[in-house]
Amino acid sequence: MTNPIRFQPVPRSAIYVHVADQIRDAILNRSLPSGERLPPERELAQQFGVSRATIREALRHLQAQGLLAPHGRTSPMQAASPDAAVDRFREALTHVVQLQNVPLPDLIELRVAIETAAMTRAAAAPVEAHLAEARAALEEMERPQISPVEFHEADVAFHVALVAASGNQALALVMLAVRDSIRLHLDEALRGRSFATIRPRVVEEHRGLLRAIERGNAKSAATLLRAHLSEFYGT
Amino acid sequence: MTNPIRFQPVPRSAIYVHVADQIRDAILNRSLPSGERLPPERELAQQFGVSRATIREALRHLQAQGLLAPHGRTSPMQAASPDAAVDRFREALTHVVQLQNVPLPDLIELRVAIETAAMTRAAAAPVEAHLAEARAALEEMERPQISPVEFHEADVAFHVALVAASGNQALALVMLAVRDSIRLHLDEALRGRSFATIRPRVVEEHRGLLRAIERGNAKSAATLLRAHLSEFYGT
Repeated sequence: MTNPIRFQPVPRSAIYVHVADQIRDAILNRSLPSGERLPPERELAQQFGVSRATIREALRHLQAQGLLAPHGRTSPMQAASPDAAVDRFREALTHVVQLQNVPLPDLIELRVAIETAAMTRAAAAPVEAHLAEARAALEEMERPQISPVEFHEADVAFHVALVAASGNQALALVMLAVRDSIRLHLDEALRGRSFATIRPRVVEEHRGLLRAIERGNAKSAATLLRAHLSEFYGT
Repeated sequence: MTNPIRFQPVPRSAIYVHVADQIRDAILNRSLPSGERLPPERELAQQFGVSRATIREALRHLQAQGLLAPHGRTSPMQAASPDAAVDRFREALTHVVQLQNVPLPDLIELRVAIETAAMTRAAAAPVEAHLAEARAALEEMERPQISPVEFHEADVAFHVALVAASGNQALALVMLAVRDSIRLHLDEALRGRSFATIRPRVVEEHRGLLRAIERGNAKSAATLLRAHLSEFYGT
């Protein structure tokens, strides 16, 4: 006896997915470059041979993925700037971290791995413009009248600039996303500690990091970084 | 003369975003746990005081973010399993990498940073079950009749298992996403090289990695890993 052929049921929602796939490919391979408008809904419906509702479904899907953005009121959509895709990437990591309960020490260790790799490269061959940004952020942190919120922003800018000084786009990208996820724990880390107490210490640790990189001492920078992040988040 | 107050125009699309935000928060803080059904569209429209079209827009948005999934034909949606959010995270990184033209060497360096951190921890305190998975993957790679596609799958499984053996969820998560992005370059890396030629070398390199971790020698594992990835992708 031979086995009968078994077919898989076709999912009902598949049509808009096929439409979305084609448009996504066009955006990713840049035949539809950033800022370029899509044809109007009616025309897309004709080209794909589907209903306008299906087109709208596909466009919304791509918008949620950061690949399309609204273009005023007349034309439905344009290919989004790559920054929108970066935002969706950062958002996607924070979602996963919350849903999977990824523990803070795991995130800190990932961040140390990324920043260490970046600083090793920055110490060897720094991108000068980003090192200058890090210096400016440190100066801002040293400004006497700075508020806790401004201080925190300068702190983030400092670390982001140091990673960017590596010239490695992939490290910079993941660093931003991991930082967002760690930020969820920031209030906890600051609880019970006064700004006046932690401020001089954080400034001093940042100064040490920057100095190590300026002197090309990647090993010292890595050690300082690990101590700085572990101390700050109490992991 | 005082400056007149300036207001920002309210974006037209904002209503469904407010709906989506509330549902997203409920999913992320687990008041709507994975697998739990949302009330029917009509009821949601009443609760939020918006049209059913707006509800549908919000639900599609959350579906594209991997937070909601269809639930059969009757009820509109259920809170997605965390795995769907992981898939969206992986997808989001490959989108950004393509849109921003992130170079292969940058991705390799990121992967080395993550795998090195994971192996350092796995060498010190391995999660035995995942080390066993790595051993099984290596055995599969050594099977005489293995096809190139199966070989590649076992290769991926080996690396993923080694990172999982660190017990660090964040490293494992980003590793998967980076691997997807690097995979885009796989055909290029293999072009002009015969399977028969590279196979014994890849097996030997993996065996060395596993041995280093089993002996608790993180430093040796890191050196072997860097050489293995750089050689394979020619960076």
